[in-house]
Amino acid sequence: MTKQAQTPLLDQLLLHNDKQPVSFHVPGHKYGELFPGKGRDFFQSLLKLDATELTGLDDLHSPEGVILEAEQLLSNLYQSKRSFFLVNGSTSGNLAMILATLEEDDVVLVQRNSHKSIMNGIRLANAQPVYLNPDYDSDSMVASGVSLETIKAAIKLNPNAKALILTYPNYYGMVYNLKDIIDLAHEHGIPVLVDEAHGVHFVLGEPFPPSALALGADVVVQSAHKTLPAMTMGAYLHYNNGMVSLEKLSNYLQVLQSSSPSYPIMASLDVARSYVGTFAKEDMQTLLNRIDVFKTELGKIDGLTVFSQSNHDPLKMVIRANGYSGFELQEIFETQGVFAELADPYNLLLVLPLYKKGIANGFTEAVDKIKKAMEGASSSSKHNGPMSLHEFRGQPAEGLAMTFKEMTKKKPDFVSFSQAVGEICAESIIPYPPGIPMILPGERIKNVHIESLEYLLRIGAKIQGGEKLKTRELKIFK
Amino acid sequence: MTKQAQTPLLDQLLLHNDKQPVSFHVPGHKYGELFPGKGRDFFQSLLKLDATELTGLDDLHSPEGVILEAEQLLSNLYQSKRSFFLVNGSTSGNLAMILATLEEDDVVLVQRNSHKSIMNGIRLANAQPVYLNPDYDSDSMVASGVSLETIKAAIKLNPNAKALILTYPNYYGMVYNLKDIIDLAHEHGIPVLVDEAHGVHFVLGEPFPPSALALGADVVVQSAHKTLPAMTMGAYLHYNNGMVSLEKLSNYLQVLQSSSPSYPIMASLDVARSYVGTFAKEDMQTLLNRIDVFKTELGKIDGLTVFSQSNHDPLKMVIRANGYSGFELQEIFETQGVFAELADPYNLLLVLPLYKKGIANGFTEAVDKIKKAMEGASSSSKHNGPMSLHEFRGQPAEGLAMTFKEMTKKKPDFVSFSQAVGEICAESIIPYPPGIPMILPGERIKNVHIESLEYLLRIGAKIQGGEKLKTRELKIFK
Repeated sequence: MTKQAQTPLLDQLLLHNDKQPVSFHVPGHKYGELFPGKGRDFFQSLLKLDATELTGLDDLHSPEGVILEAEQLLSNLYQSKRSFFLVNGSTSGNLAMILATLEEDDVVLVQRNSHKSIMNGIRLANAQPVYLNPDYDSDSMVASGVSLETIKAAIKLNPNAKALILTYPNYYGMVYNLKDIIDLAHEHGIPVLVDEAHGVHFVLGEPFPPSALALGADVVVQSAHKTLPAMTMGAYLHYNNGMVSLEKLSNYLQVLQSSSPSYPIMASLDVARSYVGTFAKEDMQTLLNRIDVFKTELGKIDGLTVFSQSNHDPLKMVIRANGYSGFELQEIFETQGVFAELADPYNLLLVLPLYKKGIANGFTEAVDKIKKAMEGASSSSKHNGPMSLHEFRGQPAEGLAMTFKEMTKKKPDFVSFSQAVGEICAESIIPYPPGIPMILPGERIKNVHIESLEYLLRIGAKIQGGEKLKTRELKIFK
Repeated sequence: MTKQAQTPLLDQLLLHNDKQPVSFHVPGHKYGELFPGKGRDFFQSLLKLDATELTGLDDLHSPEGVILEAEQLLSNLYQSKRSFFLVNGSTSGNLAMILATLEEDDVVLVQRNSHKSIMNGIRLANAQPVYLNPDYDSDSMVASGVSLETIKAAIKLNPNAKALILTYPNYYGMVYNLKDIIDLAHEHGIPVLVDEAHGVHFVLGEPFPPSALALGADVVVQSAHKTLPAMTMGAYLHYNNGMVSLEKLSNYLQVLQSSSPSYPIMASLDVARSYVGTFAKEDMQTLLNRIDVFKTELGKIDGLTVFSQSNHDPLKMVIRANGYSGFELQEIFETQGVFAELADPYNLLLVLPLYKKGIANGFTEAVDKIKKAMEGASSSSKHNGPMSLHEFRGQPAEGLAMTFKEMTKKKPDFVSFSQAVGEICAESIIPYPPGIPMILPGERIKNVHIESLEYLLRIGAKIQGGEKLKTRELKIFK
């Protein structure tokens, strides 16, 4: 345990700062000296650690000193063969692991409800995706994971598949039988790449679900910033065994991340690893007790229900309120300064703090504010959407109607929503959060897509991609 | 001027913080509440601004609110058609502009001494580079820019070239006749993409060199963090006119950057733009006077010479010392806590602070420390390398010995340095800084490369790429 209490990278930055260094190097704020008036109070102290690749501070892209030590501590904790700090989010980890594994025209089995970075990686690699449709969980009304049966069938139809890409857990913290799936894939010589963006803290063990690494996944990417105390954009990539080229992986990580990685972000990754690595039994008890009390207290508030999920991450909490959509509930909470993570037509998702024993319990104040918010809310008519946004009724496994290469050679057109049904889409439509593509380039547009899109636009949800949604047009390949 | 004093994104973050928000969203530190003991003092205040895409905080990848406003202020200042905040450095801007411009097999004219992100972008695009060898400046002993003649000849030989990619200025702040080059390229319908990583402050006007944007470049990328008070990884991309697809550009920026961009980094980009946008005459006078006095004072120190460059950026200062290599001089400065930006066999490069009138003058303290450092230094024998690392004696314009596609199909081997001469290199060898490739995959290895490499390894310079340099081996395609 003592080893995990170490933070070699942070320590070295603090040591460097002790020298009261004079900066004739980048960045231009010179340890905060030049940062102007407004915001100075917020920025100044951390800018002291915003250094660059100076003597003793190592280099993320060629680590030999304190960054290598920090990555080794990370690797020890997660029991990987090799682990990397990422400064451009799970996005960069996902892109890198895909580019390192797939060549042009390789067939890849990929979970349809994957993050857009997964889809982008496959496109950049010019690989051929076979989309695996996930199961639909009718209790939570979201897409969960892909079933073992679907994967069995997909492998049978695509024996030459070069990789299987899965997301575990989903945004709501729901997991599935990943172990059997990994074993099956490995029996067929297929490496398993896992986007575990929402599961960096699973390494804590029960009651958290098992980590994808422990279940044998070949490469795993985690957003350290989502549930650990790391700065936004801080992530981890773990390399588990030899089916994927470590050299290619390492190379793509260098290609896809800034050649001037942020030391504050990297230091926070070191701290975050130490935080979770020194999580003791008393900490777990504290955390679980607090969550339990919070859940109970919320349940007492008129109109609110805490949705009890099985087989999921206790750090994710789904709340519902009769008569309100998730979006409306989100607004109600915000009137009292309580900010949730994600809303959909039915649910409001909270990401709870990974409390340790010494940290003040913020749940109490939160309960008061939420109570006040609900009391202040006026009754509105039900706003359930015509259907769940995440329900996919397609075939278990579907390829694209056109390859990426073919797409680069065709000239796209814009048509109205109604004219778009049945055409091949030429752009991505991605509600954010959760950043899961609704329609992807190369897929045929269905009525159900247009209905969802109309609904989302009507209630003001944020959508990425979709160049002319305001005028209700979609880009297609005629 | 008043408009440039505005910082809409920072302001909104401060407003949000005023609400004393309760976080049930990512990131996991919950505005710093969970950040543990050590380092807490440094991190805590800025973590209050480490938010996510909440109500009112807009979305970098689909900006409509304060981020769009901030980007519009940026665009106004630089007089671009459209400008973007980047959170993954000039690296992401370079990759995006290249991928947005080039299709597979497109011929591209590119400056040989470009940053590795330029080379990586071309490789990712599977385009065919024709490397343009830069002139060699024998005074400063570094490679400068590509001559108009070289470009004329290259365009003649490659009339179907789809883009011209240049770096302006070089790491040392040296510029060249970019205007005539851009005009020439445009006459031939060739868009000009410029890596202006080291020139974000050129917008200030004289005595700084003219900005590439003002000279008509089509897309320009700048590292705001290098010379403005932005956090490391903060950069700008400016889109100037219609030769490159804005839609593709925007799409690739979304692909290559985290879907969870850092608000502290973005806020610092807003602040940095305001800093340079409100630079007044008195500020310029203050800055130039201080630099002048600093230069004079340094010149008085025994053994030191400030190298006077013509046609360059006054914010970059090159120092030499008789009897010492740049690396040794760097170490001498560090004994007194003075850190330079870059050393090479002959020079030590300083990036000076972009002082404004109200900011304390750190030059005085620096002079004292440097003086003390030089007094403490013992005399050593001359350590000039056998040749300049940056001298390229190849043809003015050279393609690769093998395409990127061919490379993916060949299996590489490791051979000793001596055996490598004459073979086609299969890896990148990149001394860092300055991050300019010495040898690239697909290029033939020359004696001069091996000599430079031996020298760099002997003096302990940092090198990225090169998997087995420790055992003096290089990876080649047999």
